[in-house]
Amino acid sequence: MKLNCDLGEGFGRWSICDEQQVMPYIDMANVACGYHAGDPLTMRATVRLALQHGVQVGAHPSYPDLAGFGRRSMECSSGEITAFTLYQIGALREICRAEGGKLSYVKPHGALYNDMMKDIVVMRALMTAIAQAGGDLPLMILATADRVQHESLAAEYGVKLLFEAFADRRYTADCRLMPRSEPGAVLSSEADILKQVRHLANGSVTSDTGEEIALLADCLCVHGDNEEGIAMIKTIRAVLAGGD
Amino acid sequence: MKLNCDLGEGFGRWSICDEQQVMPYIDMANVACGYHAGDPLTMRATVRLALQHGVQVGAHPSYPDLAGFGRRSMECSSGEITAFTLYQIGALREICRAEGGKLSYVKPHGALYNDMMKDIVVMRALMTAIAQAGGDLPLMILATADRVQHESLAAEYGVKLLFEAFADRRYTADCRLMPRSEPGAVLSSEADILKQVRHLANGSVTSDTGEEIALLADCLCVHGDNEEGIAMIKTIRAVLAGGD
Amino acid sequence: MKLNCDLGEGFGRWSICDEQQVMPYIDMANVACGYHAGDPLTMRATVRLALQHGVQVGAHPSYPDLAGFGRRSMECSSGEITAFTLYQIGALREICRAEGGKLSYVKPHGALYNDMMKDIVVMRALMTAIAQAGGDLPLMILATADRVQHESLAAEYGVKLLFEAFADRRYTADCRLMPRSEPGAVLSSEADILKQVRHLANGSVTSDTGEEIALLADCLCVHGDNEEGIAMIKTIRAVLAGGD
Amino acid sequence: MKLNCDLGEGFGRWSICDEQQVMPYIDMANVACGYHAGDPLTMRATVRLALQHGVQVGAHPSYPDLAGFGRRSMECSSGEITAFTLYQIGALREICRAEGGKLSYVKPHGALYNDMMKDIVVMRALMTAIAQAGGDLPLMILATADRVQHESLAAEYGVKLLFEAFADRRYTADCRLMPRSEPGAVLSSEADILKQVRHLANGSVTSDTGEEIALLADCLCVHGDNEEGIAMIKTIRAVLAGGD
Repeated sequence: MKLNCDLGEGFGRWSICDEQQVMPYIDMANVACGYHAGDPLTMRATVRLALQHGVQVGAHPSYPDLAGFGRRSMECSSGEITAFTLYQIGALREICRAEGGKLSYVKPHGALYNDMMKDIVVMRALMTAIAQAGGDLPLMILATADRVQHESLAAEYGVKLLFEAFADRRYTADCRLMPRSEPGAVLSSEADILKQVRHLANGSVTSDTGEEIALLADCLCVHGDNEEGIAMIKTIRAVLAGGD
Repeated sequence: MKLNCDLGEGFGRWSICDEQQVMPYIDMANVACGYHAGDPLTMRATVRLALQHGVQVGAHPSYPDLAGFGRRSMECSSGEITAFTLYQIGALREICRAEGGKLSYVKPHGALYNDMMKDIVVMRALMTAIAQAGGDLPLMILATADRVQHESLAAEYGVKLLFEAFADRRYTADCRLMPRSEPGAVLSSEADILKQVRHLANGSVTSDTGEEIALLADCLCVHGDNEEGIAMIKTIRAVLAGGD
Repeated sequence: MKLNCDLGEGFGRWSICDEQQVMPYIDMANVACGYHAGDPLTMRATVRLALQHGVQVGAHPSYPDLAGFGRRSMECSSGEITAFTLYQIGALREICRAEGGKLSYVKPHGALYNDMMKDIVVMRALMTAIAQAGGDLPLMILATADRVQHESLAAEYGVKLLFEAFADRRYTADCRLMPRSEPGAVLSSEADILKQVRHLANGSVTSDTGEEIALLADCLCVHGDNEEGIAMIKTIRAVLAGGD
Repeated sequence: MKLNCDLGEGFGRWSICDEQQVMPYIDMANVACGYHAGDPLTMRATVRLALQHGVQVGAHPSYPDLAGFGRRSMECSSGEITAFTLYQIGALREICRAEGGKLSYVKPHGALYNDMMKDIVVMRALMTAIAQAGGDLPLMILATADRVQHESLAAEYGVKLLFEAFADRRYTADCRLMPRSEPGAVLSSEADILKQVRHLANGSVTSDTGEEIALLADCLCVHGDNEEGIAMIKTIRAVLAGGD
């Protein structure tokens, strides 16, 4: 069970987290590519740090929206989504190459990720981009009850999938994330989160109704943008490493 | 003697020239990469058209300046120039790959090009980017009296050079372009331009003092952003093809 | 019956229409404010030209989207819409003042305009901006069957409304624009358009079912972004001036 | 002797300092206007906070350079500088008005400020903007030995000046800032800084050669972008308030 984390989300003068503290504890860095964050120097510094720590670099493409940090959905055509995803993948891939590394996967960011999970047209546009890009990059999506349909769709494009789960979000009995607007949607106690980590590591999760349901995930999404998040990453890492 | 032309210099709703008219007559398309022009859809359409016509695609990186069309010099550090050049090269290279083609060279745009020719620090920053990028991309620069020094510098980085000349600019006896601010700097009669094309095709140019001086160039820079320019491209192409 | 037209929709090197040709024939110029088009120099040149021709200047604020020309809807909060509308209004107002003129009204652009007509939350956010801005600027919206409700809403904010109609769009019997996707939605013959102009000037329009329905409008929206549009503006102006 | 501080220098998701901590101790807030920092929501929140604390709001216009935080000089024409300064002034002024306040002065940011102090063409372009803008906004510049010349120039434009000094920078005997590249250019001990504050409050400063020279300043520039800066602001405020 790998840990992936959004990184490189500064821009010029601005930064969000101390990446030095996060990088030793994760396996996959989702690196912003300039559209919601990530000027070229920031991208390069993040890629270098990831490579130093043996962390895989993933492209984290977004809608073009610096002011909104890529969190505002935009009505883009499929052609636009495919083209700007290729643009962002290529920009980061070149920086990886310059740093002696390689690009390993693609995880859409923010509103683009959410739209992908809600709208098959957006998912197709992203798969088209990845199929047209070089290098057999897997696409990271949310592990849900629709896994088989998503795999079938990806197969159309010859695209591999990576499934991620959340350690701190409650799942419903039909294997979806409870909407954040509902009470209990976000796990707040460390004990609950670590219990969910252990279950996810074994391919299941306890739903909001108390049932143990199957949920196969390749990786967990963790958050490094505040002190609590960084502390939790270290704890989750220790649990996964075989501590109790 | 090849012809290179700046293309893909629209952005979203805006376009500059009818590329359909230009593409059949040139050999190398310098394609904007998003920093002075060229949103991803425009880049993709230009690359596709170039490939249809067997025209080589070159990256045309710029300072980040849409409002100034990359024509305003910016005080960027070497690290910034190297990083944003890699970013732009990669973005266009991925789009080339998606269209089944490849990226063939790099020609800096506007103020970045001018700064490169005036300031060795900028030229080194660009050569660093190209050396770090994959694929042995040649760097296109201005053919001047400094050819040997430029080749020597490029050799340090393992970078190949392409030299371009101008059909419509007057050269001084020491093999430099007359500044545009001086009278006679730009050739205005078709006869003068075509005479200069013929001389350049044979490795020389007539200077402002009337001397015939050696000037080896791999290609001529032509302009497709207005009707006169497009007409001239066709005429130059015919002359180079062996007409009189 | 006044004519309003989107102008100042270039950006830096790019322009869309020859504003010199349009300005003599219109009454109101909707001037882009930098978010979908309109760098400060372009804004200033357009304002100057408008003032020379005695044309009213209106702010034409947009979602922040240069690459999409403001035509892509974005999921912005009310607070964001209010704040960026104030920003754009103020920027243009200062340029009007510098040119010795004044700002006269606000007409949202593209997707922001469409969202305003579909979603009362967006309309409220825009009215809030206009109420908080100085100078009693009227808001221009589409004349529809909802006129009374819109006036009632505007009264809550102390905002005046201007209603615009389209000379070249077919209206339904319930006084709405036929969606562009339907056949016949856009009037293509000059005779049909001029007939509609004459009816609109008299407070009515012929619907797609052939009924004559009431439609009170303060102005007509005309298009100056191509030669046909400019020719039509001159013709409509002549018709309104009392020619047949 | 007033204290001015750069604030509102976040952008969307990013912020730089905790403005709640700074605002109670300063007199003048230089608020970013969107070109180097400051999206409309950030601008609005900063203006609101300033008004709550009775702090004057100044426009802090910049070259258009988010990635470089306005610290990279750009070769802009006078017309461009004037137009984009008007644009930024107007945008912030409208937000002030919406918050029930007013704009009080203009202080150029970063590279634009430095270029203004080095190049009279840039200073003239800025004075032109301020003269053309409404409201008799003073322009804040660096207090130097050229005070009389600057006042004479400003009088040409009918522009008032505000002079600022630095508590933590060493001055040369001819009343200029020592370049940061020279040793001792920045005062590092609190005792030295507070001594300089006391002298500046009395219209003089001790130069690098030990001479006491006259230096009349209206305000001191203080820095709120880190904890040390904020602590120093409080200490300087206490000293100016008549502590020892």
